[in-house]
Amino acid sequence: MRNITIIVAGGSGTRFGASLPKQFLLLAGKPVLMRTLEAFALQSSEIIVVLPEAHQALWQQLCDEHRCCVAHRVVGGGDTRWQSVKNALDTLVVEPGDVIAVQDGVRPLLSQHLVERAFAVARECGSAVPAVPVTDSIRQVESDGTSHIVPRAVLRAVQTPQVFDAVKLKSAYELPFQSFYTDDASVYEQAGNRVTLIDGETTNIKITHPSDLVLAQNLLSDE
Amino acid sequence: MRNITIIVAGGSGTRFGASLPKQFLLLAGKPVLMRTLEAFALQSSEIIVVLPEAHQALWQQLCDEHRCCVAHRVVGGGDTRWQSVKNALDTLVVEPGDVIAVQDGVRPLLSQHLVERAFAVARECGSAVPAVPVTDSIRQVESDGTSHIVPRAVLRAVQTPQVFDAVKLKSAYELPFQSFYTDDASVYEQAGNRVTLIDGETTNIKITHPSDLVLAQNLLSDE
Repeated sequence: MRNITIIVAGGSGTRFGASLPKQFLLLAGKPVLMRTLEAFALQSSEIIVVLPEAHQALWQQLCDEHRCCVAHRVVGGGDTRWQSVKNALDTLVVEPGDVIAVQDGVRPLLSQHLVERAFAVARECGSAVPAVPVTDSIRQVESDGTSHIVPRAVLRAVQTPQVFDAVKLKSAYELPFQSFYTDDASVYEQAGNRVTLIDGETTNIKITHPSDLVLAQNLLSDE
Repeated sequence: MRNITIIVAGGSGTRFGASLPKQFLLLAGKPVLMRTLEAFALQSSEIIVVLPEAHQALWQQLCDEHRCCVAHRVVGGGDTRWQSVKNALDTLVVEPGDVIAVQDGVRPLLSQHLVERAFAVARECGSAVPAVPVTDSIRQVESDGTSHIVPRAVLRAVQTPQVFDAVKLKSAYELPFQSFYTDDASVYEQAGNRVTLIDGETTNIKITHPSDLVLAQNLLSDE
């Protein structure tokens, strides 16, 4: 009946335009990834951080500098997000009743309440995937270049933590990679399991662009 | 062969949590709506700003205070975005060759290059709708509460300005309102016209939450 957390920080951050990968940038004085890690400290019995080999020494140094006191293991990242999660799962022996949360390393602003709800619902329903309404108008592009509107009332933007029955998640990751896998819910679903959506948080943003870091700093100071 | 611009600022901004509707908040010292208006000044022969009756005196006052020198007409807003655009269209007599841009009043950061491209493509193809790739994982919710992944590679998030052949846009707005109308492309398409997508700009954000204003300020200072 363990809560296990896998935090994926495999990105090299080359899109970000900063010298450091975005998970290591300081948000109100502390690395983004460390804030994410701390959000899971109280509610996980085991935490794995997935990092490219090339970033592991830097992470260790940051943990020392900032006196990180959240126990965690580091596992090497893969070329894709899917491979990174699989690398972490391969190091785990799970038992019926265990649940596993998979979390983006660059989503540092989630609330304790969201972590708690996600674990609780997954334990009850097999999965818990936070999602928020889509605010943009969305169009779907066809192979001939035409496009058509998708009614946004039926769309949800998916966040993390995505929490799953541990045994089912491990089995799902035994199936071959599919190009439409952009998150863990899609992997879990492809194996025939049902995905349960829960309410996400609009403040639970992903640090993707430099401007997101400014936004995150502002959201933190609003608390 | 006129370029006509309709700027929709009908929202009461009650979701925003600020005392002023968001289109009137100051962005680097100037009201958001005035920045939006100025972006169209050089490339439009006629500009209509759609505002609720209750906001028109305030807007006049802001124009005086900030010495707004972009010529425009003000038209009263409706209960929905659709009705607001229709109110503006009803005041226009259009001719073949005219094109009409419809712009969100709260998207002040678009580039001159985007305005120019949108008018040019619409003149060529009948319509031009800026869109950007979707970065979130998206799920579609069914009426029974289940959901499934939508491959995000085929999705685009739609922005403004959306520019259309004026005669066709006016006809499209003669059709009855549909609940899935969230932008003008959906209205134009419903009338049997083809929507042409062009590349949008990730910086062309909509000021919806207070944090967006901070982000916009940051983007402006990056220029």
